Amino acid sequence: MPLAFWNGELMPLDEVRVSVLDRAYLFGDAAYEVLRVYHKRPWLMEEHLKRMERSLKELAIDASLAPVRAEIETLIEKADFTHGSVYLQISRGAALRTHVPPSGLTPNRLVYLQEMDERFGEEKRQNGVRALSHPDIRWHRADIKSANLLGNVLAAMEARAKGFDEAIFYDRERRITEGTHTTFFGVRKGELVTTPLSNDILPGITREFVFGLAKAAGIPCSEGYVSLDELETLGEAFFSGTVSEIQPIVEIDGTTIGLGKPGPISRKIGELYAAAIARGA
Amino acid sequence: MPLAFWNGELMPLDEVRVSVLDRAYLFGDAAYEVLRVYHKRPWLMEEHLKRMERSLKELAIDASLAPVRAEIETLIEKADFTHGSVYLQISRGAALRTHVPPSGLTPNRLVYLQEMDERFGEEKRQNGVRALSHPDIRWHRADIKSANLLGNVLAAMEARAKGFDEAIFYDRERRITEGTHTTFFGVRKGELVTTPLSNDILPGITREFVFGLAKAAGIPCSEGYVSLDELETLGEAFFSGTVSEIQPIVEIDGTTIGLGKPGPISRKIGELYAAAIARGA
Repeated sequence: MPLAFWNGELMPLDEVRVSVLDRAYLFGDAAYEVLRVYHKRPWLMEEHLKRMERSLKELAIDASLAPVRAEIETLIEKADFTHGSVYLQISRGAALRTHVPPSGLTPNRLVYLQEMDERFGEEKRQNGVRALSHPDIRWHRADIKSANLLGNVLAAMEARAKGFDEAIFYDRERRITEGTHTTFFGVRKGELVTTPLSNDILPGITREFVFGLAKAAGIPCSEGYVSLDELETLGEAFFSGTVSEIQPIVEIDGTTIGLGKPGPISRKIGELYAAAIARGA
Repeated sequence: MPLAFWNGELMPLDEVRVSVLDRAYLFGDAAYEVLRVYHKRPWLMEEHLKRMERSLKELAIDASLAPVRAEIETLIEKADFTHGSVYLQISRGAALRTHVPPSGLTPNRLVYLQEMDERFGEEKRQNGVRALSHPDIRWHRADIKSANLLGNVLAAMEARAKGFDEAIFYDRERRITEGTHTTFFGVRKGELVTTPLSNDILPGITREFVFGLAKAAGIPCSEGYVSLDELETLGEAFFSGTVSEIQPIVEIDGTTIGLGKPGPISRKIGELYAAAIARGA
């Protein structure tokens, strides 16, 4: 069982208990982040903490992230493994249930580190994944990384139940927004294209990193929408994400993407991402 | 502090603790209901339990409501008060965090009874409330009564911060959907009109009850949309809800509704609702 810091106190994750009056339990009233640890080093931690600051601000949760870096370092030190993922969640705190929270609540902070195999997801990255499209039923602040995730959960459950690896959300204009926990990239005429930032998608940390890799490699890259109606002519597609890393998409709803195997640009980005991790920057 | 049943065990509400791995804490993965107790009798309990069954089914949470009636009766018996509200929540259960839940989880059931003053909300029902319009940012399964409530919370917080009593959601076509925890009714040319049922609004228990009262009183009543652009010509408006009961709206965004005081149809429905409660049916 992973070790956790619960409001600064170290304990096994499965022993952490919280009041059912915590607003995360009653309203999903909490912000969170997931970040990777490779070779005992946190990956893109400052970027994740910066996004966490933004999510807390948007939710008007007044909580300090000051202790978090040291907690993550301690968890990494104490771990008997070298690769893992950190989960960080801060809720608004506990109070008798009313939609408008009383002032002066004490946020609850959870940080834990879970082991992950170094090759986690490797088979999917090598062979690609099959995705099922799903109407984007999430709330219109998907830019806030919050514990209101039922839309993501229901779509992912449906995709899995139907034998797909991931669900891919589309809006009322049949434009792809993102995956249930991943950013979507398409390749159109040799150019990388990804959904523009808005209140409807998460500003992905890996998304930004991919932009940087593409630029350095001379691969044209822009923000724009990919429609469900252009899948047959799409050259390549992939998901990016903290847990998924770079995951080629070889099929959406039964439509083969490109040649039905990871394309050259997806593979190139995947190699560059793996190399960056290996370098530790 | 209210008394609670936690998975069948009786204890003070503020002593109920749950694992932070409960999916309600991490994903808002839970369904809930709130129902009133008047004069030591649960009000419209079967209707609420039926809706709870539906929410659980839509979320694919496999939990039995069989113990709930007896738990509510016990809480009412043990209470040293006569008026209150019951909160019932069932989460999918606890597991290491993944979007797609593992099978075989054990749901966690919380039932508690909180005292409410008999005259709770009376001043607002007599004088009416002021509402602030807000884009409907909630997810597109608002018909499921779930713990994904951040859209409701943020809108209610904004309304309160700006000096309003409640927020009122409108969709992309500027049509009113509902309040943050209430159904919206307008009166247009003497006819009651309320938002049609869809995946975007909660099928209100009080909403249905109001339909019945209106029908019995010979007040014409239909489903239809009220637009934010017709507020100046709207005769009356009110919110209905388990906690709010019948709450006249006298102003939206600074626009006076009707004569700026509770109108005759709103008052009539309010009186009929109060009489029905007094009769216990």
